[in-house]
Amino acid sequence: MRVHGIHYRTIALGDDGESVAVIDQTKLPFAFEQVHLRTADDAAVAIQDMIVRGAPLIGVTAAYGVALGLRADASDGRLHAVVQQLGATRPTAVNLRWALTRMVEALRDVPVARRVEAAYAEAARIADEDVAACEAIGRHGAVLLKLLSGRHGGRPLNVLTHCNAGWLATVDWGTALAPVYAAHALGIPLHVYVDETRPRNQGASLTAFELGAHGVPHTVIADNAGGHLMQHGRVDVCIVGSDRTTATGDVCNKIGTYLKALAAQDNGVPFYAALPWSTIDWTLEDGVAQIPIEERSGREVTHLRGRTDDGAMHEVAVVAPGSAVANPAFDVTPARLVTGIITERGVAPASRAGLLSLYPERAAS
Amino acid sequence: MRVHGIHYRTIALGDDGESVAVIDQTKLPFAFEQVHLRTADDAAVAIQDMIVRGAPLIGVTAAYGVALGLRADASDGRLHAVVQQLGATRPTAVNLRWALTRMVEALRDVPVARRVEAAYAEAARIADEDVAACEAIGRHGAVLLKLLSGRHGGRPLNVLTHCNAGWLATVDWGTALAPVYAAHALGIPLHVYVDETRPRNQGASLTAFELGAHGVPHTVIADNAGGHLMQHGRVDVCIVGSDRTTATGDVCNKIGTYLKALAAQDNGVPFYAALPWSTIDWTLEDGVAQIPIEERSGREVTHLRGRTDDGAMHEVAVVAPGSAVANPAFDVTPARLVTGIITERGVAPASRAGLLSLYPERAAS
Repeated sequence: MRVHGIHYRTIALGDDGESVAVIDQTKLPFAFEQVHLRTADDAAVAIQDMIVRGAPLIGVTAAYGVALGLRADASDGRLHAVVQQLGATRPTAVNLRWALTRMVEALRDVPVARRVEAAYAEAARIADEDVAACEAIGRHGAVLLKLLSGRHGGRPLNVLTHCNAGWLATVDWGTALAPVYAAHALGIPLHVYVDETRPRNQGASLTAFELGAHGVPHTVIADNAGGHLMQHGRVDVCIVGSDRTTATGDVCNKIGTYLKALAAQDNGVPFYAALPWSTIDWTLEDGVAQIPIEERSGREVTHLRGRTDDGAMHEVAVVAPGSAVANPAFDVTPARLVTGIITERGVAPASRAGLLSLYPERAAS
Repeated sequence: MRVHGIHYRTIALGDDGESVAVIDQTKLPFAFEQVHLRTADDAAVAIQDMIVRGAPLIGVTAAYGVALGLRADASDGRLHAVVQQLGATRPTAVNLRWALTRMVEALRDVPVARRVEAAYAEAARIADEDVAACEAIGRHGAVLLKLLSGRHGGRPLNVLTHCNAGWLATVDWGTALAPVYAAHALGIPLHVYVDETRPRNQGASLTAFELGAHGVPHTVIADNAGGHLMQHGRVDVCIVGSDRTTATGDVCNKIGTYLKALAAQDNGVPFYAALPWSTIDWTLEDGVAQIPIEERSGREVTHLRGRTDDGAMHEVAVVAPGSAVANPAFDVTPARLVTGIITERGVAPASRAGLLSLYPERAAS
């Protein structure tokens, strides 16, 4: 997607053909800076310190981290050590482990002398596959948005989204925002309501930044506001991402998604989850009962980082001192509240039958 | 209610019998300070700068402001001027105008020489009536909480509340929190989940402060978290306030209340609104259609005030620069989502018949 009119990916090989350029997402939305990763250590720090975040992007960064880590020594021992190091950076990131396993499988039978080249090539393939999947999600979702736009007589279509399932969470396009970018590219007039997404504010910082940088009209709202907007006909469709999806179509996404799905249902607003195949866990039947929800640090609720008028960054406390805090990071939206699921294969109802219609190869399992 | 073991009202006559002591709510939750109002100007500034806030407290402050304003000159002209000045401080506060009208009616036929004394007495009556109404709400609500506590086998009852409809918004007790304080006083074990209540964070700052100071166990959560907690049986009852209530039982309360009511319904959690008679507008039938919602400054969403570790207060920007912001301040929860309404007269279904059972004198109108 574009920033100041220039096309970027969140991660790309540097002009030197060796370093890996990533956008420093800890500086957003107040500064747009690329940093160059030159070693496996750099890649590990980038993942750990959330310079890169978002499951697909973390996976690709880890893959490139393997390539960087093999440059001086591509032995089996070094490969093992690098994978261990990178795998420990974000213990709960499924995509990270998937990408590292894929790198090991691609490299272990390659002679040591050709491993570095093969590692860069495999990392690039993982990145390109992610872009292709997101682009396909965008293509399928844009058909849907075009249809809805037609129903609303050509006035800008109002889309509501939660958290950041955009370009910045992937390599390009995003998942929930891919249909928005694809529709925008087709000239379909649209406007996005961006939930600020407490406690980490990824909506107000990342989603608002990327939509603004790319030129998509949008409005930031408190997480509390979406229901009121839907009651008054100001939201035409909701699109969210999913970190984990059951075989029955329940979606586990950033905390607060469930509340918006309830409001959408109460007001007849279609509610879609856009997600790649990799988030579907075919072993899960009941998201609320089966998906463990990460409880994160209370400091994410009690403290906020922002910029004072003089340009300095400060972290400030905003909760009464001494009060206990709970911080569940995700919630589960049951399939009954989800109008449809958009994947790289197409759009289907949020049900086992719906998902199997997109992934018929899973029917046998 | 108590702070550091001492009983306070949010507003009270000073020990000198002339000044009026109020808690400076702009300093909460990081400092607890009382300031003394000595003139009508002081009272006007206290209301305008939100040193005092909450509809009942604003009304009582204005009433005392009239008394302060008449001390040097209690003529008809001065009475008129003081009422004009105080009435202009918060243009949309219905309670402010109600209190000022009541003061004028109580004072206009009193001889000038006795007006100051009469004004202090009438302001004290308004304050005492507010305390009595809130205490009655607490008494009726506590019966309900005791019943629910019994059903849950005596383990701490988990109450969820939104915004601050507590002691700090009234003179004492609060509205939504009055049942909590009354139940706590009865020894019923309970724990309150406090929505932080973006964008102004009254939950995280005021509600958490007052519950903590009084000694009521509580946990602050992001506004996004309540639905997830209800899905997992961690909330037994929701109690919220209401700024405006229709004759049919729709409640207009702080933005985001509607989303919690939807989650409560979806999970079979009882959802109550606690409110004094003064918020019921008997002319309204349909809250969503008829109640205009105040759109407040976007700066409340884009900026947050908090304390850095060195104790200094800073306001920081947290939204991508250049992004548009919308900030509706209230939403309407339809009566169909409200299990019951708790008023100073008792508990009734959220319906015209329910409200008329509490206020039969309104049936003729």
